[in-house]
Amino acid sequence: MQLGIVGLGRMGAFMAQRLIRKGHTIVGYVRHAERVQALLKEGSITEGATSLPDLVQKLSTPRAVWLMVPAASVDATLETILPHLAPGDIVIDGGNSYYHDDIRRAAALKSKNIHYVDVGTSGGVWGLERGYCLMIGGEKEVVQHLDPIFSTLAPGVDAAVRTPGREQIGGTAEQGYLHCGPNGAGHFVKMVHNGIEYGVMAAYAEGLNILHHANAGKHQQEIDAETAPLSNPEYYQYDLNLPDIAELWRRGSVIGSWLLDLTAHAMLKNPDLGNFQGRVSDSGEGRWTIAAAIDESVPVPVLSSALFERFSSRDKDEFANRVMSAMRFEFGGHLEKDETPPPA
Amino acid sequence: MQLGIVGLGRMGAFMAQRLIRKGHTIVGYVRHAERVQALLKEGSITEGATSLPDLVQKLSTPRAVWLMVPAASVDATLETILPHLAPGDIVIDGGNSYYHDDIRRAAALKSKNIHYVDVGTSGGVWGLERGYCLMIGGEKEVVQHLDPIFSTLAPGVDAAVRTPGREQIGGTAEQGYLHCGPNGAGHFVKMVHNGIEYGVMAAYAEGLNILHHANAGKHQQEIDAETAPLSNPEYYQYDLNLPDIAELWRRGSVIGSWLLDLTAHAMLKNPDLGNFQGRVSDSGEGRWTIAAAIDESVPVPVLSSALFERFSSRDKDEFANRVMSAMRFEFGGHLEKDETPPPA
Amino acid sequence: MQLGIVGLGRMGAFMAQRLIRKGHTIVGYVRHAERVQALLKEGSITEGATSLPDLVQKLSTPRAVWLMVPAASVDATLETILPHLAPGDIVIDGGNSYYHDDIRRAAALKSKNIHYVDVGTSGGVWGLERGYCLMIGGEKEVVQHLDPIFSTLAPGVDAAVRTPGREQIGGTAEQGYLHCGPNGAGHFVKMVHNGIEYGVMAAYAEGLNILHHANAGKHQQEIDAETAPLSNPEYYQYDLNLPDIAELWRRGSVIGSWLLDLTAHAMLKNPDLGNFQGRVSDSGEGRWTIAAAIDESVPVPVLSSALFERFSSRDKDEFANRVMSAMRFEFGGHLEKDETPPPA
Amino acid sequence: MQLGIVGLGRMGAFMAQRLIRKGHTIVGYVRHAERVQALLKEGSITEGATSLPDLVQKLSTPRAVWLMVPAASVDATLETILPHLAPGDIVIDGGNSYYHDDIRRAAALKSKNIHYVDVGTSGGVWGLERGYCLMIGGEKEVVQHLDPIFSTLAPGVDAAVRTPGREQIGGTAEQGYLHCGPNGAGHFVKMVHNGIEYGVMAAYAEGLNILHHANAGKHQQEIDAETAPLSNPEYYQYDLNLPDIAELWRRGSVIGSWLLDLTAHAMLKNPDLGNFQGRVSDSGEGRWTIAAAIDESVPVPVLSSALFERFSSRDKDEFANRVMSAMRFEFGGHLEKDETPPPA
Repeated sequence: MQLGIVGLGRMGAFMAQRLIRKGHTIVGYVRHAERVQALLKEGSITEGATSLPDLVQKLSTPRAVWLMVPAASVDATLETILPHLAPGDIVIDGGNSYYHDDIRRAAALKSKNIHYVDVGTSGGVWGLERGYCLMIGGEKEVVQHLDPIFSTLAPGVDAAVRTPGREQIGGTAEQGYLHCGPNGAGHFVKMVHNGIEYGVMAAYAEGLNILHHANAGKHQQEIDAETAPLSNPEYYQYDLNLPDIAELWRRGSVIGSWLLDLTAHAMLKNPDLGNFQGRVSDSGEGRWTIAAAIDESVPVPVLSSALFERFSSRDKDEFANRVMSAMRFEFGGHLEKDETPPPA
Repeated sequence: MQLGIVGLGRMGAFMAQRLIRKGHTIVGYVRHAERVQALLKEGSITEGATSLPDLVQKLSTPRAVWLMVPAASVDATLETILPHLAPGDIVIDGGNSYYHDDIRRAAALKSKNIHYVDVGTSGGVWGLERGYCLMIGGEKEVVQHLDPIFSTLAPGVDAAVRTPGREQIGGTAEQGYLHCGPNGAGHFVKMVHNGIEYGVMAAYAEGLNILHHANAGKHQQEIDAETAPLSNPEYYQYDLNLPDIAELWRRGSVIGSWLLDLTAHAMLKNPDLGNFQGRVSDSGEGRWTIAAAIDESVPVPVLSSALFERFSSRDKDEFANRVMSAMRFEFGGHLEKDETPPPA
Repeated sequence: MQLGIVGLGRMGAFMAQRLIRKGHTIVGYVRHAERVQALLKEGSITEGATSLPDLVQKLSTPRAVWLMVPAASVDATLETILPHLAPGDIVIDGGNSYYHDDIRRAAALKSKNIHYVDVGTSGGVWGLERGYCLMIGGEKEVVQHLDPIFSTLAPGVDAAVRTPGREQIGGTAEQGYLHCGPNGAGHFVKMVHNGIEYGVMAAYAEGLNILHHANAGKHQQEIDAETAPLSNPEYYQYDLNLPDIAELWRRGSVIGSWLLDLTAHAMLKNPDLGNFQGRVSDSGEGRWTIAAAIDESVPVPVLSSALFERFSSRDKDEFANRVMSAMRFEFGGHLEKDETPPPA
Repeated sequence: MQLGIVGLGRMGAFMAQRLIRKGHTIVGYVRHAERVQALLKEGSITEGATSLPDLVQKLSTPRAVWLMVPAASVDATLETILPHLAPGDIVIDGGNSYYHDDIRRAAALKSKNIHYVDVGTSGGVWGLERGYCLMIGGEKEVVQHLDPIFSTLAPGVDAAVRTPGREQIGGTAEQGYLHCGPNGAGHFVKMVHNGIEYGVMAAYAEGLNILHHANAGKHQQEIDAETAPLSNPEYYQYDLNLPDIAELWRRGSVIGSWLLDLTAHAMLKNPDLGNFQGRVSDSGEGRWTIAAAIDESVPVPVLSSALFERFSSRDKDEFANRVMSAMRFEFGGHLEKDETPPPA
């Protein structure tokens, strides 16, 4: 079927390509005209638009326009495109919007008889080949209307071993896309998905950090009143090969996962990951996940710890640490120890 | 090759079967004679032993004896078997021993010229078909001598998509087994593996709990000074299908993993997991992981939170909670609210 | 000076009494007429009102009306009282409102030339004697106008040893009240104050729980594959006297505090706190503190852990725990162990 | 009574002075002869010793020797002094020893009929005036024999308001010293005390950090896909006076404490604590507290988070952070954002 796509960065362009390969028609718009030309040339879009109104005009009704823009730009894009849309048209937000915004936008569009669908999209830069996992919120009929798009973007059942018993249940979940509920449900489920992602990433990161320091006993430590000496250096004499261990765990172990696959790949290229500084960004969903948990009174110590580690990686703990050092000086005259971390 | 196995519970019996299928010879011993007979009958062992000395006698030198007994029983088993072993023999501890014990035992056996190999074994009840991920510590030559056993137990390279670039590296890691380092290294790596496992499990569990409570806004709440009202019930109106969502995430998403596969399977059978009480055991490695991290000064907020959630699930937080209620009563006269958790 | 007070529960009545003792005039309103009479009789108010309009009428302009009602009732109270107020009048919210609401309300009132002051009030049921710590947000002149009220409610400088050097700084902070900034600043600071309170309470509660279980080594444990045995029971043979220890720490130690004073008092009356169930409520500020920290990208692992412990104390972790048990069953066939917590 | 003290650093010298002021006789030894002379001159000791044997010789039997040396030096000191002691003599370890070591040492000394007492000592550099909080482990008669020393070092009942009802209980707890139990109990209680201290310190530090960033909305933020924009900058426009707020909370509030007194003092001198880097040491007890909690299966998310924040303040999270950045690059092509923390 025909689909308009607004925003064709890395991820949007790959999604368009995947759709075109399976016979869909994509009208694409992106701000810079030369980029539109490049996309046309590389086959990522079927037709290019010179503006949002132009994009709308090039689509047949009922139109379906997929937005793949930063969360902070969705409202501005909607404002521009809205006057050109007609009743019955569908706007799909496939980015990482906050589900509160979905609920608000869907209500606003509904008053003009325009449908809104929120789609949480996971798959990163790999989705072109792997397919995209789609978490969908919106009206039942509208979601069904878009089924050809969703089923093409999704990985399909062959992407994983079938869960025994699933064959008797049916539904699209095992295809890798799901109508989760009314508006907002798609991004709600995607939000929690990303919250889990933060937690899983941090679990691997912490564990690998323990392995990384498994030779701590080889480093000399002076005895002073400020630092606890490593009382049992004989237990920390291992120089472990982390790229091998990440690879090892990929087969047969309980903790095999796609994130581990990626870690093994990254470590194969750079065993000590020295090409990264360790300043870890976060892009919203992890934060909203904690907010939702708190609203629901659901304890999330692991997911919140994972988020806070990212904040600390960007030195947002600095003032708190100065407070602790100041207290230690006040009660015990403790001076900060200018500890140089041992090479590890 | 020939291998003696002591301890043929669920996991040990499956390992023996996997070895026999690929042509190895297994002499097995387990306390109850009728169990030995049953194992013989089902083809899990090649030959049965009536006692530890009998097992030793039935093996040709240099013997290889694999212990698959609870961590707490390893020392007693060693004490019984040791007098019957000869210099050059090999004892393998394939259970979940603390790596400190490996170091101690290896040193003790070394004085008698008996070799000790510690093998962290992951794979659970699935290993018969999936293979076992083996993390190995010990002397290089001894580990190499046992390679036929390890390579048979391990899943093999086909068990996962090959990491691009791995083909130029070689080694056994991508077969699913690895000589990690000297004695203790195998169980050290397995310990951290399990620590990560706890963290990953908790990340999914917390996230699914948020989804489980996504309909919290549908439940009436009274206004009082003790409880924060849900200020925005309109955002928590979703009745989500968790078995479908767990299935959904298995394909194309960033958080696909074997643990998620298992979760999808469990939820397919029991959508609300009402067949479990939620008293989560822990079996040592998660604790030792935190201890190692602390020795190394490595922060592990996620892994420790995951462990502590298990303790709390078994009500070990009860006295602490009473202390907090007592303080609240003292400063504010707050009485405990006998809150019945809403059906969710 | 004259002050109207709406809401004379435990805390409001004590505040009124403290003001009256120092010569202020209090016009009080509370829903039930008989309660107003009782307050008059016990000297908690100077004059009673039969309705909000009646209260307003009994105050001379510019009026000052202090609201001491649950956070969820402030807007309704404001709506009722507002039509009766005149330009120049002042409304003070002394409860535990969310500071977002202060900003909104102040803006709404400003359009009618009515002033709004938000006052975070700490002191609990002890404030009558101890005084109240007041964190104030609002316009400078308005806050200064109310200074007689604030300085009377506050504890005064003698309530604690003077900080060396403070005498050269001046200001009201060391009196126990402070104009923190524009509207919302008062409740913002109070919010964080309560967030800290949760963290401090949890620190004591966890520590005392460790002491409570210091005799864990005296309890028999069976050996099985599910539970890590206590490997060193000889280190957990202490039957500690917790009421004595709480008392002990009150003098000379680094962790002396008012919360510890209260804990010592509570434990003196009930050494094992068996009069509490350990279902710990939370009333909003702890949650908002985490939300503010996340907005600011500030890591708060301790404050959030303290909040989540309260959620868990009310069994909100139950589904998450069932998920973990389900995973354990799936990969390892582990059954839940029906562990009865040992008497401790 | 007469007491020998080994180790007269800042803390030991102050303890000696406090004892001398109340009429006790102190024989002191410290490695450097000139330091002994200086201590004599300033009145911190009654008599100086030139060596450990000399110290022993100058004491009358049964001798009482108080060790105030780094935990890592206790065993060496004991080894030197032991041959010179006689049956019935008493060695007191007043430092921060691990209680496991107390149990071991007490058993070793017992075989020579020498008594061992472990005393956890809190009070820091303030103890000379404030007194020391003493947590004592050992044999009942031996502890009673030393009562004159303990009661002098302790703050005494007047150091805090009496807990109502305590007068009917008796005992030394409200004097600020307590015989907690057999050997190790003193340092066990002190260990947990310090664990709590870490938690309380972190609670204040995190809360003050939130206040420190309360003006985050004043800083411009660019819109990109990597960083979550501050969606509500209008709520973070407060420039708060932290020294005033720390002072404010000291009176009437629920979170008043000695640690807060110290914080107010530190901030008065350096409002932004710019004289500290924020590399926070830890000296053993915090770590052992977590280890004990884990042995007991007691959840301690707050105390462990506080410890891990110290590790992170010393960059021990670096490799873990690099792992997370590497994963983000692998799945999403995310580059690290070189974020300069805004001035705050």
